[in-house]
Amino acid sequence: MSDRILLDYGNMLATRLGGRGIANDRLAAFAARFADVHAAVQHRRTAGEIPFFDLPHQRELIDRIREFADGVGQAFDTFIVLGIGGSALGASALAQALLPPHWNELSDEAREWYPRLYVLDNVDPTTIAPLLARLDLRRTLVNVVSKSGATAETMAQFLIVRERMVDVLDDAWRRHFIFTTDPAAGVLRRLAADEGVPALPVPPGVGGRFSVLSAVGLLPAAMVGIDVDALLYGAAAMTERCGTDQLTDNPAGLFAVLQYLAHTDVAAPIHVMMPYSDRLYGMADWFRQLWAESLGKRRDRNGNDVFRGPTPIKALGATDQHSQVQLYMEGPFDKTITLLTARTRSIDLTIPPAYASIAELAYLGGHSMGKLLDAERRATTSALARSGRMNMTIELPAIDAVALGQLFMMLQIATVLAGELYDVNALDQPGVELGKELTYALMGRPGFASPGDAPAEPAHICR
Amino acid sequence: MSDRILLDYGNMLATRLGGRGIANDRLAAFAARFADVHAAVQHRRTAGEIPFFDLPHQRELIDRIREFADGVGQAFDTFIVLGIGGSALGASALAQALLPPHWNELSDEAREWYPRLYVLDNVDPTTIAPLLARLDLRRTLVNVVSKSGATAETMAQFLIVRERMVDVLDDAWRRHFIFTTDPAAGVLRRLAADEGVPALPVPPGVGGRFSVLSAVGLLPAAMVGIDVDALLYGAAAMTERCGTDQLTDNPAGLFAVLQYLAHTDVAAPIHVMMPYSDRLYGMADWFRQLWAESLGKRRDRNGNDVFRGPTPIKALGATDQHSQVQLYMEGPFDKTITLLTARTRSIDLTIPPAYASIAELAYLGGHSMGKLLDAERRATTSALARSGRMNMTIELPAIDAVALGQLFMMLQIATVLAGELYDVNALDQPGVELGKELTYALMGRPGFASPGDAPAEPAHICR
Repeated sequence: MSDRILLDYGNMLATRLGGRGIANDRLAAFAARFADVHAAVQHRRTAGEIPFFDLPHQRELIDRIREFADGVGQAFDTFIVLGIGGSALGASALAQALLPPHWNELSDEAREWYPRLYVLDNVDPTTIAPLLARLDLRRTLVNVVSKSGATAETMAQFLIVRERMVDVLDDAWRRHFIFTTDPAAGVLRRLAADEGVPALPVPPGVGGRFSVLSAVGLLPAAMVGIDVDALLYGAAAMTERCGTDQLTDNPAGLFAVLQYLAHTDVAAPIHVMMPYSDRLYGMADWFRQLWAESLGKRRDRNGNDVFRGPTPIKALGATDQHSQVQLYMEGPFDKTITLLTARTRSIDLTIPPAYASIAELAYLGGHSMGKLLDAERRATTSALARSGRMNMTIELPAIDAVALGQLFMMLQIATVLAGELYDVNALDQPGVELGKELTYALMGRPGFASPGDAPAEPAHICR
Repeated sequence: MSDRILLDYGNMLATRLGGRGIANDRLAAFAARFADVHAAVQHRRTAGEIPFFDLPHQRELIDRIREFADGVGQAFDTFIVLGIGGSALGASALAQALLPPHWNELSDEAREWYPRLYVLDNVDPTTIAPLLARLDLRRTLVNVVSKSGATAETMAQFLIVRERMVDVLDDAWRRHFIFTTDPAAGVLRRLAADEGVPALPVPPGVGGRFSVLSAVGLLPAAMVGIDVDALLYGAAAMTERCGTDQLTDNPAGLFAVLQYLAHTDVAAPIHVMMPYSDRLYGMADWFRQLWAESLGKRRDRNGNDVFRGPTPIKALGATDQHSQVQLYMEGPFDKTITLLTARTRSIDLTIPPAYASIAELAYLGGHSMGKLLDAERRATTSALARSGRMNMTIELPAIDAVALGQLFMMLQIATVLAGELYDVNALDQPGVELGKELTYALMGRPGFASPGDAPAEPAHICR
């Protein structure tokens, strides 16, 4: 594959940052440690602990998804995903990157008769009620995505949407749903069997945040015409590329090691992902879950309290130059900034040379808007480096399915490598259980104790 | 005013957090310091240094905006804001909060014949070109918002959109623009005069991030039918409420002091703003600029290098319980989480009691979706507190213009108070100049030096 993702990481290193940043020899000396970490991940992979590596090779599943999407699926005007967290973020990122902007506002013809797409990833009735009131449910297909089949938010959405469908369609409601859930266990799998609703699998061991290349992300992608084969081709190529234990040849390894060293050597625990592209902002949101939920852990692998984890942030260039860059340039030296860009873009606009006598406008004329965006990005990396601020750039060959597949897989592999470096289990999320249990209690679910009375001390409320 | 914003800050204090958090007596002891800080801000206000305080009382401007929006403005189907940073975030936050969701997808009737609204806050041609290609420019009004009139991104947009308008409308292009800019100086003011384009003022001394209650935010709001009088009424009421130097009665003061003490006493420099409402997510984005750009400063007021400033983050409940809360619960104790909610909501949905024999679904039946969202929020505050994590809740009486006006003003006042606490100038942004100059150089603007050749050391690139 010639169209590969490129990592430019010179601005993470002390030589470029006037002595701040990661010492160049420290990175070189880390190569041996990286080889161990890489071997540990390969070992876990071989032991079947990290099955997301194998998602690009599920031929049978992919055929089934394409058959569904190209057949039954195209009978619908609207496709709704009910899901939250990892059940939603991958589909949203793909749609934002690869569909024309404002997709749902476009005519049928402009959408090439692919359906409108709504990813409902919250339980806010002020969003969902107006949407349900105006959709034609007879032309709507609903994809309920929950690995466990017990996610409170998603199942509440399901119950509401199902009732509306029954009102309109009676028994035929079943033909307007498709579930994506555990292949054997859980409520949704049981309902699929009992009700005769089709259901796609989330493979065992593939957690929500690593599921974009499973049916969780692929069905929505296929439904709106995204080339899922190209996506998986890119992902497989990146897996192969990251098979090396040579740190400087391994983009996932470099990303993980540089962010880890920035955190632990240089005291920069805040990791900003900043695409210079509206299309890639959803990727930053997807990454934010991946990095936070995988690495933010109370206990290390030996069970010791460590309260570890970097804090990921999404930002958008050039927009956030007018919002966050003041802080990135002048605030504490506690951040890395990873810029995302693409070498080519599908569309550009020329800035016309009007008002040539006005200096504040004249220099813009004749350039393309894409050139301006690139100039802003390059200026930002330079300005950050001159101010001693660590930054790196991930350059995609283009914003297309092959490149997205590479990027998803690179960041997923980087995350499990980072889990080894931080010595935490990157695949679990024990910290969300207490909140779930307290929610159940507040909702009156039998067997869950109330959070208890308010503390006896006086309330601290300003009214 | 009985419908006031409420702050519940008990979970910021050590008594609720098992000893972590802000010591209760420290807050009490800080009351005297706060009185000084409050007096300093009042002094600056009286000296005319902080004119955003007076924006709610510009009767003449408000009449002019309403007259324009209700008259000429309603001849258009589509209203476009060209602006970036503070020229865009307020309008976006207002629209997201107060318009029905998916506004631009709604029929004319559902929009009550108010125009569609696009806030173009980036220079990404892959967003702008497809939009311009499908809009009917003969029915489109464009608001160019730039205080200086020299913002590169906004002026590039202007030149492109203006040319398209000229193609379609010839000399009549002028009737499809309205500028919002400095009342006397700058390129846009000059063009307004030369070309005969109407222009609204941004008062001197009101920086972009404090401009939502000026014409910058009010014109877009009025154009889509938002009650600007109610917005300003709420803002004025909050100004009055924050006139006290009694810390526990002053919501802006409490917010500023608690976040400051969390940062400096408890080493929590990351300040998360997490609305439990899709409608309020734009407020978190607006706040993120306000807090970062105002407080992230290299120098204190005496010119010493201090590299100060908390890092604001936007999050969304309940969605981010499935993305960020694992980190907030188990990661480092380096964050505060401010939840936003509303006491009442305009719309709700009932979860039907289907599948009563399935425990994972039965408990949901009969409750409203709003109750579920509230339960998730309360569960999250409890779970965070039990894990020793500082959090506070800002409760709006409702999501309406009066409440939004209160919230904008409360956070703006909190920001200038925090500027005093951090001892930085909250009103400037010197750190973005270098990036601007390097951009000019890369775009070939005369008088700006090139960033120079690439460093002589070898490139660090993984291809």
